[in-house]
Amino acid sequence: MIKFITFEGGEGSGKTTIIDNLLKDLSALGFDVVKTREPGGSKIAEEIRHVILNKENTAMDYRAEALLYAASRRQHLQEVIVPSLKANKLVLCDRYLDSSLAYQGYARGLGIDQVYQINQYATEGLLPDLTFYIDVDPQIGLSRIQSAHRTVDRLDLETANFHKLVRNGYLEVAKMFPQRIITIDGKRPILEIYEEIKNIILEKMNAVTKEAK
Amino acid sequence: MIKFITFEGGEGSGKTTIIDNLLKDLSALGFDVVKTREPGGSKIAEEIRHVILNKENTAMDYRAEALLYAASRRQHLQEVIVPSLKANKLVLCDRYLDSSLAYQGYARGLGIDQVYQINQYATEGLLPDLTFYIDVDPQIGLSRIQSAHRTVDRLDLETANFHKLVRNGYLEVAKMFPQRIITIDGKRPILEIYEEIKNIILEKMNAVTKEAK
Repeated sequence: MIKFITFEGGEGSGKTTIIDNLLKDLSALGFDVVKTREPGGSKIAEEIRHVILNKENTAMDYRAEALLYAASRRQHLQEVIVPSLKANKLVLCDRYLDSSLAYQGYARGLGIDQVYQINQYATEGLLPDLTFYIDVDPQIGLSRIQSAHRTVDRLDLETANFHKLVRNGYLEVAKMFPQRIITIDGKRPILEIYEEIKNIILEKMNAVTKEAK
Repeated sequence: MIKFITFEGGEGSGKTTIIDNLLKDLSALGFDVVKTREPGGSKIAEEIRHVILNKENTAMDYRAEALLYAASRRQHLQEVIVPSLKANKLVLCDRYLDSSLAYQGYARGLGIDQVYQINQYATEGLLPDLTFYIDVDPQIGLSRIQSAHRTVDRLDLETANFHKLVRNGYLEVAKMFPQRIITIDGKRPILEIYEEIKNIILEKMNAVTKEAK
């Protein structure tokens, strides 16, 4: 049963637009959809997010950053995701533990395995049923953000090389979880990407519904 | 060589007064002393401390709390403790990982071993050379706080039973690290406790100095 779907990708990959559209269309089809995001989605998790993304916090240690993301993830999981799943809702979450594996584990060099262990503790092993990784060249992603005049945070200020490492990290993580993570070509127009993702979700939902009959 | 000393105990155990006196007296004896505290001691660590102790954050999950303490510990370690140790200073720290073992591991029921593992990641295994656990009945400790009119935080609002569990947790942790942790009877007058601790530190320093000769 597909109940918990996460969306991953670098800055400007179009995740937010895609999730907004899914919320609208899947709700219209009768699904009880909850849209949420990481880090944040609960008051405490948002407070932690504020510490993480504060532009002044340039002295942030990498392991401390990984632990903060894990803390925020845990709080969001307990306050938002678990109650929604218990109420049989379809949860669409913008970022989850794969972000930590790609950003902290790979790009920061902490090691995917070590960051995975911290997150195992934070999540008690709760993985999404399905994850879309929207793969896009960081140069394209960052130019999309600039043209959208989105507010810049601490992570946007990282070097171009960091964003390249994040992409390599995601490709590595996608290889580690081939059953769960679907890699989507993100350089196409956003509506085309959206249609592909929506169709995959509906196909998987139908397949499950048919099996159940 | 004794370079990193931590002080542990429940609320109102007198740690702050003892550390203040040690700073004064050991400095007068010519030691280069740094006094610091957990959680906090650096700008980012203090921001994390604010999230942890915010009285409104009653929805704080126990694992999230343990991860936040570990993040704050890591940041404080990297920004304050490690640079001070490298500069050959004597570091006196009010709380360190044993607090997490007693409060989160034992009293919150997360398990001392699991919380120790998270903290191994946060500290890369850096343990104090010496730790004083000032053991005091929580009823005495809490009445000391009340008479001192200290500002009440989220942890002070815990039940009397929680503070009893913290004490049992500390006694358990002290048994696990008999070489490092010295348990001090904290129900005596504070100056008596202070003299005992100061003498133990000076004895250990002298012993090391003599060995080196």
